[in-house]
Amino acid sequence: MTHVKSTIDSVQGFSAAGVHAGLKKAGKRDFALIVSDRACAAAGIFTTNAVKAACVLVDMDKLHHSPDTIRAVAINTRSANACTGEQGIHNAHITSGWVADVLGCTPDDVLVLSTGVIGMQLPMDKIKQGIELTASDLSDDWQSAAEAIMTTDTRPKMASVTVTRADGSSYQIAGISKGAGMIAPNMATMLGIIVTDAALTVEQAQTTLTTAANFSYNRIVVDGDMSTNDTVFLLANGASEAAIKNDEEQAEFQAALTAVCRKLAQDIVRDGEGVTKFITLHITGAVDDVSARQIGMTIATSPLVKTAFYGNDANWGRILMAAGRSGIELDSQVMSLSFAPGETMDGALKLFEGGMPTDYQEAEATAIIKHDAVCVHLDCGQGDGETTIWTCDLSHEYVSVNADYRT
Amino acid sequence: MTHVKSTIDSVQGFSAAGVHAGLKKAGKRDFALIVSDRACAAAGIFTTNAVKAACVLVDMDKLHHSPDTIRAVAINTRSANACTGEQGIHNAHITSGWVADVLGCTPDDVLVLSTGVIGMQLPMDKIKQGIELTASDLSDDWQSAAEAIMTTDTRPKMASVTVTRADGSSYQIAGISKGAGMIAPNMATMLGIIVTDAALTVEQAQTTLTTAANFSYNRIVVDGDMSTNDTVFLLANGASEAAIKNDEEQAEFQAALTAVCRKLAQDIVRDGEGVTKFITLHITGAVDDVSARQIGMTIATSPLVKTAFYGNDANWGRILMAAGRSGIELDSQVMSLSFAPGETMDGALKLFEGGMPTDYQEAEATAIIKHDAVCVHLDCGQGDGETTIWTCDLSHEYVSVNADYRT
Repeated sequence: MTHVKSTIDSVQGFSAAGVHAGLKKAGKRDFALIVSDRACAAAGIFTTNAVKAACVLVDMDKLHHSPDTIRAVAINTRSANACTGEQGIHNAHITSGWVADVLGCTPDDVLVLSTGVIGMQLPMDKIKQGIELTASDLSDDWQSAAEAIMTTDTRPKMASVTVTRADGSSYQIAGISKGAGMIAPNMATMLGIIVTDAALTVEQAQTTLTTAANFSYNRIVVDGDMSTNDTVFLLANGASEAAIKNDEEQAEFQAALTAVCRKLAQDIVRDGEGVTKFITLHITGAVDDVSARQIGMTIATSPLVKTAFYGNDANWGRILMAAGRSGIELDSQVMSLSFAPGETMDGALKLFEGGMPTDYQEAEATAIIKHDAVCVHLDCGQGDGETTIWTCDLSHEYVSVNADYRT
Repeated sequence: MTHVKSTIDSVQGFSAAGVHAGLKKAGKRDFALIVSDRACAAAGIFTTNAVKAACVLVDMDKLHHSPDTIRAVAINTRSANACTGEQGIHNAHITSGWVADVLGCTPDDVLVLSTGVIGMQLPMDKIKQGIELTASDLSDDWQSAAEAIMTTDTRPKMASVTVTRADGSSYQIAGISKGAGMIAPNMATMLGIIVTDAALTVEQAQTTLTTAANFSYNRIVVDGDMSTNDTVFLLANGASEAAIKNDEEQAEFQAALTAVCRKLAQDIVRDGEGVTKFITLHITGAVDDVSARQIGMTIATSPLVKTAFYGNDANWGRILMAAGRSGIELDSQVMSLSFAPGETMDGALKLFEGGMPTDYQEAEATAIIKHDAVCVHLDCGQGDGETTIWTCDLSHEYVSVNADYRT
């Protein structure tokens, strides 16, 4: 597997820009534009929240009707354009139209994304300014775009990979993402825009993006809340002329795309609101993968599990409590639980087995949990179902960030 | 309806005690015993957590086999006797046996409850001391028992009511409860022990307790976690000779019992870990009551909703976000949302209607949310389903309490 980088050099045929358009305070970048010089095959994954932002509704419609002519994605912060009624839908269309005018394409070719406060209408004068400023500033400066889509994020999230194939041809996959709170997987999480200069059909784009999301964005939890705006796009413009012609090439593309998405998703958890600890949660031995996921998600969203990690307290009983309330039938007599430092199970310490604690020493468990990254392995002793979920602790800083978000 | 008091004077035939047996530090009361001088008809509601504490398993068995001979309930803090394997079950039986020896009954007549850290075996020498001390200290001092079952609670929770019937006869219902964290309804919450000197059959006791719990304990949320130990008991010893002879008398008893349980349940929320705000959540207009409950529970457990309340931020968009991720199909175009100060909808301010914000002023909303108690009304515009849930905010103090719980 080619190494996934945390930077983006350039992707053929794509350009990007991020500017300050007056949406955020203090001159911070707040509007981004990503443009392809030719039509892309595009795929999207959208929030399953029943309350969907206007931009989500508009983009779903565009990808349904014209998924093979997409040219650009425009992203604003500050207002989520959610719970904004007909005016919100209208404003999303106006935004697309302005971008289309500048690029010389049709409004249907422009996707729009918003993130920020729910229930606030888009400040259209500033959106217009953002479009004008970014359109005249397009370049390979992906970092400016990654910065411009941040809200409570403390750092931009970028990932890229170059795939060189057996026949000597090569292509790139690159993406940016944002998100730090309101993070619970189940179809996309927050905003992610992935581009590639490989040549994909619309069907290939959607299939590979869905699979990649299921092994990346859909496996992370910060706080268990799910945004009205969650969206991940994949845009493939074919500028490298590397087409996906057979199953083998698709598998190769899939692996690279999943690696990029996983890097971006994990970076969302690492930069989660108030996060001090990165937790990798392996659930094995469940009756099936769906049950494993439900158990893992319940543990990952448990405030008591998350506060114990924050307090460096190896209070594993709370993990069993959370598993037990997941709605899945479990038998604690056949379950086992281990902790390990870091992101793998190397150096694991078994804490619980056969319905009761092992004879571990509290100091050993505490030494593990004090690491910045901790791996937890819960075996349910029932079958072959398994999953891996990446999550984090719940800190004072999370409360501060979210108690004061709009002020 | 007779007034529900926050104190307990005396209940015929029952006595109680709470002592310091060395389980907690600093001389705090940590062991309680409640005794009836004659056999009771008893009913119980237990946690639905798949991981159940030893005491829960033992008590379920006792209420199954001998629900009409119960004489006592013994409660310890410090160890939850959960995830403690065969030894935990054995220790629960030993505890029952010791109490039975002192009272001159059989072990089957003694229920046992534990609350505290999961995965810690009961310190049996201290349990024995607790039994000896309480047995020689039984009186009408219910407050000592209510104090002795506290963990992170900051105050004891008691409620009582006297019912005088049309024929001049009367009876009492009284109860104590504990709980401040790991609170999410769905069959009992934390510990509640309700006693009455009315004469009930076992079936009457179970029916009325189940109904009362559905309108009280099962409608509160502190943090969304569900304990391995949640249990509520109703013990009826008939000492008042007031029997429940017909539907009308049962309805009267039901109303009084529900009022006592509701008082105790609401007090758990008011004293929830780190709570600064008591929130009454009315969900109306859902397709059915089950959907209303699912929507309400999702809002009540949303970290982003709870932190906004803590920050006195009328960020109602988060309430719509949480409703939207509840798994229930919703249409924001027909929903409406209002806030009111206090525990009723008097003085309500409508914030959202017809898919978008109303023209309220932010200062009006902020003035409401600054109250210690806030009422939220979400109408889904779909049908007649409704529910009321009592919940609270999520504060720095909650994180502190639970990050440091075992230290």
